[in-house]
Amino acid sequence: MKQEQEEVIALNGVLMRRGEAGVDPRDRGLMLGDGLFETLPVYAGRPFRLDDHLDRMRAGAAVLAMPFTVQVETVMATLRAVLDANGRAAQDAAIRITLTRGAGPRGLLPPANPRPLLMIAASPLAPAPDRPLAARIVSIRRNEGSPSAQLKTLGYLDNVLALAEAAALGADEAILCNNHGNVACASRANLFLVRGGALMTPLLADGVLPGITRRIVIELARAFAIDVVERSIAPEALMQGDGVFMTNSLLGIVPLAAINDRAIAASPLIKRLTDAYRRLMA
Amino acid sequence: MKQEQEEVIALNGVLMRRGEAGVDPRDRGLMLGDGLFETLPVYAGRPFRLDDHLDRMRAGAAVLAMPFTVQVETVMATLRAVLDANGRAAQDAAIRITLTRGAGPRGLLPPANPRPLLMIAASPLAPAPDRPLAARIVSIRRNEGSPSAQLKTLGYLDNVLALAEAAALGADEAILCNNHGNVACASRANLFLVRGGALMTPLLADGVLPGITRRIVIELARAFAIDVVERSIAPEALMQGDGVFMTNSLLGIVPLAAINDRAIAASPLIKRLTDAYRRLMA
Repeated sequence: MKQEQEEVIALNGVLMRRGEAGVDPRDRGLMLGDGLFETLPVYAGRPFRLDDHLDRMRAGAAVLAMPFTVQVETVMATLRAVLDANGRAAQDAAIRITLTRGAGPRGLLPPANPRPLLMIAASPLAPAPDRPLAARIVSIRRNEGSPSAQLKTLGYLDNVLALAEAAALGADEAILCNNHGNVACASRANLFLVRGGALMTPLLADGVLPGITRRIVIELARAFAIDVVERSIAPEALMQGDGVFMTNSLLGIVPLAAINDRAIAASPLIKRLTDAYRRLMA
Repeated sequence: MKQEQEEVIALNGVLMRRGEAGVDPRDRGLMLGDGLFETLPVYAGRPFRLDDHLDRMRAGAAVLAMPFTVQVETVMATLRAVLDANGRAAQDAAIRITLTRGAGPRGLLPPANPRPLLMIAASPLAPAPDRPLAARIVSIRRNEGSPSAQLKTLGYLDNVLALAEAAALGADEAILCNNHGNVACASRANLFLVRGGALMTPLLADGVLPGITRRIVIELARAFAIDVVERSIAPEALMQGDGVFMTNSLLGIVPLAAINDRAIAASPLIKRLTDAYRRLMA
């Protein structure tokens, strides 16, 4: 998932070359992690589920009591301009939309009249992994006791540490439990367990980001009359089911082949959902 | 504690006026909260405990596997240049030192050869509060299950939300418990409880930043033959002792007069420690 960001980005709607673009060192996104982001794929020039991503960002801004005046039409126009300027108007791309509370004086409390910063950047879209991935349950816990665990905030250091811990053990992904010992998520994806022909996925209250692909998969499964249960899941249960997969906006559905070096079954249900998801992308 | 930052700051040792200084939009500090900071006071032009702050930053960088080549002499020289450029060479000031992992490609895993960004900024030093403060135990939990809870990382959004929750209830400060229900800290300070002539303060393992002033207070207390116990503390215990105070590098020792609208006793021991702390500052 490591890709170079491209040269032209948009800061508050203004296109700039990277070397010219600078963010105010007082920006609260940089100083305090006071901001949100979204990443989404573009297929052949068409953003996938941009509305859903902006809806989630709007909901996050409400939790943070941050003004949100971002319009989908404006973002769409800026995003197209960024893609165009980077020479990928009709190609696949990964988009990152970052919204911070903007620059402010010292101190934790937000300024009375914040001027948010909106950044839009594009990168090449990495191909989906060509082999099933191995995951590791890591020591770092997800903070189920903060509303920020259910938001895509700029504070991603725990995810960075979790993935680094998994990578140091030779794994491709990290699985994080919360402080109560329940499974929460992967370092950059939601998790699903297949068991007895049904799907289970951790409760949002267990410290889970309400993933866009998570919701799409729940809707697809229900359309196929597959039961989906949102509930607390013990880490041992992941090893005892008929399959485990991750969901992520940029990669879609990604099966896990192993967790902590134990092989995970490959339920045919995962293939069925993946095929259905790919039809949505087209 | 809200103060305007001043005009001239240092980015990687280079002094810049605020309007000229820009941070790379790909900086991992901004994108992922991948960085650390320290705030410390300057009294009459002399930084207080700069070595201790840089030691803590070095220890944090080791946990994050981030290169740390910052030298205390270099920081001291840059810091003096920043103070001088802002016309406060011999005055009081608040310094913020921010270290990020620098710009990187997309994705969570750090680049193989990160080029960290070091920023040094100065602000006027706010006076210590002239009245005892009221605190509120808030709903947001501290993540005791991550090593980042014991580091001063850029991810301060939970603290921002905690303080906003307390402020909305008319309080001056927020007290955060962890996911196990034990007291951890205030939104920007460590906590101490006075009971039976001894001090108690939450264990670092409860999700506590190892505060510089926290350590100074522990050392002062022991020098006075006052017992100090680091242990898990239930929130109710705070209300039942002989006094509660906060410690913070910029403000020193700050007593709490009320928690959740219940009056807190004012142990004479707090005055004694405060007087001793002020002698250190001189």
